[in-house]
Amino acid sequence: MCRWLAYSGRPIFLETLVCRPCHSLVHQSHSANECIAATNGDGFGVGWYGSFAEPGVYRDILPAWSDDNLRSLCRQIASPLFFAHVRASTGTATSRANCHPFTSGRWLFMHNGQIGGWERLRRRVEAMLPDERYAERRGTTDSEAIFLMLDRDRLAEDPAAALADALGAIRGAMAEAGVAEPLRVAAALADGETLTAVRYASDDRPPTLYWRVADGDVTVVSEPLDDDHGGWQALPAQTALTVRAGTVAIQPFEVRAVASARAA
Amino acid sequence: MCRWLAYSGRPIFLETLVCRPCHSLVHQSHSANECIAATNGDGFGVGWYGSFAEPGVYRDILPAWSDDNLRSLCRQIASPLFFAHVRASTGTATSRANCHPFTSGRWLFMHNGQIGGWERLRRRVEAMLPDERYAERRGTTDSEAIFLMLDRDRLAEDPAAALADALGAIRGAMAEAGVAEPLRVAAALADGETLTAVRYASDDRPPTLYWRVADGDVTVVSEPLDDDHGGWQALPAQTALTVRAGTVAIQPFEVRAVASARAA
Amino acid sequence: MCRWLAYSGRPIFLETLVCRPCHSLVHQSHSANECIAATNGDGFGVGWYGSFAEPGVYRDILPAWSDDNLRSLCRQIASPLFFAHVRASTGTATSRANCHPFTSGRWLFMHNGQIGGWERLRRRVEAMLPDERYAERRGTTDSEAIFLMLDRDRLAEDPAAALADALGAIRGAMAEAGVAEPLRVAAALADGETLTAVRYASDDRPPTLYWRVADGDVTVVSEPLDDDHGGWQALPAQTALTVRAGTVAIQPFEVRAVASARAA
Amino acid sequence: MCRWLAYSGRPIFLETLVCRPCHSLVHQSHSANECIAATNGDGFGVGWYGSFAEPGVYRDILPAWSDDNLRSLCRQIASPLFFAHVRASTGTATSRANCHPFTSGRWLFMHNGQIGGWERLRRRVEAMLPDERYAERRGTTDSEAIFLMLDRDRLAEDPAAALADALGAIRGAMAEAGVAEPLRVAAALADGETLTAVRYASDDRPPTLYWRVADGDVTVVSEPLDDDHGGWQALPAQTALTVRAGTVAIQPFEVRAVASARAA
Repeated sequence: MCRWLAYSGRPIFLETLVCRPCHSLVHQSHSANECIAATNGDGFGVGWYGSFAEPGVYRDILPAWSDDNLRSLCRQIASPLFFAHVRASTGTATSRANCHPFTSGRWLFMHNGQIGGWERLRRRVEAMLPDERYAERRGTTDSEAIFLMLDRDRLAEDPAAALADALGAIRGAMAEAGVAEPLRVAAALADGETLTAVRYASDDRPPTLYWRVADGDVTVVSEPLDDDHGGWQALPAQTALTVRAGTVAIQPFEVRAVASARAA
Repeated sequence: MCRWLAYSGRPIFLETLVCRPCHSLVHQSHSANECIAATNGDGFGVGWYGSFAEPGVYRDILPAWSDDNLRSLCRQIASPLFFAHVRASTGTATSRANCHPFTSGRWLFMHNGQIGGWERLRRRVEAMLPDERYAERRGTTDSEAIFLMLDRDRLAEDPAAALADALGAIRGAMAEAGVAEPLRVAAALADGETLTAVRYASDDRPPTLYWRVADGDVTVVSEPLDDDHGGWQALPAQTALTVRAGTVAIQPFEVRAVASARAA
Repeated sequence: MCRWLAYSGRPIFLETLVCRPCHSLVHQSHSANECIAATNGDGFGVGWYGSFAEPGVYRDILPAWSDDNLRSLCRQIASPLFFAHVRASTGTATSRANCHPFTSGRWLFMHNGQIGGWERLRRRVEAMLPDERYAERRGTTDSEAIFLMLDRDRLAEDPAAALADALGAIRGAMAEAGVAEPLRVAAALADGETLTAVRYASDDRPPTLYWRVADGDVTVVSEPLDDDHGGWQALPAQTALTVRAGTVAIQPFEVRAVASARAA
Repeated sequence: MCRWLAYSGRPIFLETLVCRPCHSLVHQSHSANECIAATNGDGFGVGWYGSFAEPGVYRDILPAWSDDNLRSLCRQIASPLFFAHVRASTGTATSRANCHPFTSGRWLFMHNGQIGGWERLRRRVEAMLPDERYAERRGTTDSEAIFLMLDRDRLAEDPAAALADALGAIRGAMAEAGVAEPLRVAAALADGETLTAVRYASDDRPPTLYWRVADGDVTVVSEPLDDDHGGWQALPAQTALTVRAGTVAIQPFEVRAVASARAA
């Protein structure tokens, strides 16, 4: 179980959210509250949109709390749309390739949660990747695999639907493999203009997600960054939150298990 | 506040203590019980005596819990006398040079605790190092500085006395600098034959140390590795434990503040 | 193009070959002679057999020339059968999972060379891995993929034949994918008792391999460790060298491209 | 001997000079031409001025050629004044604290060269640091020590003079210690507005430095980034180049050995 935050709004320096709040993401790397693992010390990453369609990414394997580079970059870099993530491995190795956010073209993706039975599913899921995405596979996490499953045309049209499709295929694979463990997802996607956050579980324990709008700027987090209890709202389970041009929309997020082509 | 263990006895594989017990040192890197910081993720190290007078050392900056190399080495390497340490920085950087154990010639040293007001004292303490030791200074920790202060002739004769002398000089420097914070020390020293562990504080809160003798093999730890409550004994404050040729001796450990030559 | 060495003989400290010779492997990490890339600074690794059937492994992403841990371990660890490798990436990332030697059960494997057109072949080759090996895939290199392709029963019987089979399947996949680039292999395999080294290319430029027997101890290297020109012999192309119980055998090594089951 | 570049001009993305030219700094990390060590793989760093008086810094211990973070940051970050450095250690450890550029307040500093006899001089030189700078000492290099010796008032007034003073004190210390080896310096200093580069040696072999003005933008480099032979001019030995408000001034740079206060 990891911790993450996503921001969409007027350009701010990354440190405003990543390092400065009393319960900032860097603080959560050491002492998270709302998850089983209080320590999220298995690497970290930030991704941000600047002058190009493609985002910048900085990921490393040290705990976030002890990385001077992260502090300096978060102080210097301002962005209207960025992600930050601190990782607690559920079994896969601590390597840069396993750190979030993942990027491909203009897309950023990050995730907290897990695909139940991943060890048994990995081959099946990787077999479903389109060739271009297969070639982009760098690590061994379920999270990167989810990202690479997303259909690019569908993503461009409707990111939440693209994610629902991928999770549907994964649930199909889980069913075929007889996996009883749940699929739990708190994911964020962005393309430089739109931010999509999804909270979902196949059982009744989806990972937490909260969001806040302040002066039109939207922040989505695994757990609140401060004690502003009025401001932070829990995102309901099985919903997708979309921020586009300053407007927030919350919609049901439904996943239908789809049998794989292979099984057909 | 860090966590460490030291072993002296029949040769055993390092993993026997470092990785395997339910509350092994690797487990403590993630979830220590008896210290303020439950997480000791700012690097780690092992030092052991093998075929040479000089010990082997493996130190790295990742959290111990995620290092495959550590697991493999601890499985393969057996030793009659070894140290292991997981670090929680009290402010200095996460770098290999700041990881314990420290080594010089045939000596190994590791430490949990702190010199109060270190930032203000650093220059004063480093100025007290003999030239040969000054040249060996690689990092910026108070722990390495304590080690480098130890007089080699005195060490060869009486390691606890050498440490008491160094701490006395440090207390002298603290007094001269008007430092009110305490000096707290849980340190271990070895030369390949003798293991010396010291528990000391200038106030009434020395870092914890426990020891156990089982079948003649001695283990000293920051906190017990398992629930064997009968077996682990707390080392009293202001004492030094020495293991030599299988014999354990516990003696008072007294530190007298000594004014620096400079001040004279 | 990487550099490696393998040793089988009376137990010696790893440093005897890895660090000490004038043109030691650590020296080759900085200044190799007989390869296009003089610098082999994209990580390194050592693997050795000690008290267990399973070998120990230490791999890291720094250049070998600057790693104090490597120096200390090579000084302390003695072994009758060990591998050491310095890496020059041919495109894949610098990560521990991409560093040699690779290990699985009691086997060690390392490699210098390349599968031509790997980017295009990766999916095809990974699809040929048996399920148990697929689950062990940690990195993205062609070398790890070759290792994981080896059939375990065949390996136990005849390591060179197992490697020839795997390379035959890879050549089959290359043919099917229309890859014109060559397959070039200088590989070593060990199981704690037998050392097998293979020099092979599908064109006329196999990576160099040399070997030497001194007092019954066998060393195989990418390039000679010293100026002992009488001692080092080039291993001919398309041959396998096997060391078992102190006896060296050199045999032809033939690879027949095999169409994949899939294509059938 | 390291390689570096400094830029002052209209804001450009760092990659324009760090990654893109045929003989870019990243390329030089692997294959430098004009220095003894062709490989500069002992860490790297970039420092740049953005929205704040204090510069951003990103330093790491991997070779520059294999760092994806560096590539991404250099693509995203634009600056009117920045430094980049690839390191070839002359003996001190590969650690972030030993990587250039160094920063303190609004100053950036980087260096290629060496203080002859540094091992013997280290204590003497560190003893000359003012208290505030002593507390900022993180590593063990001669380069960081030169930077920390610079008098802040003098720096604000005349950076080249501050550097000349510091080098004068170092030459004094060298004389007192009987060091016969030379002092060789190719250094750059910036405060967000002014760029100062100095080429100096106490013998006749100062490290190379070249500079170019193109459309009013100034680049200073250890060796040319491309074949534009008309554009790059060698900076003469014993001179300082200053860029302020688009104007380049080249002045003699003289160092007078000064006996230390201690010796007085």
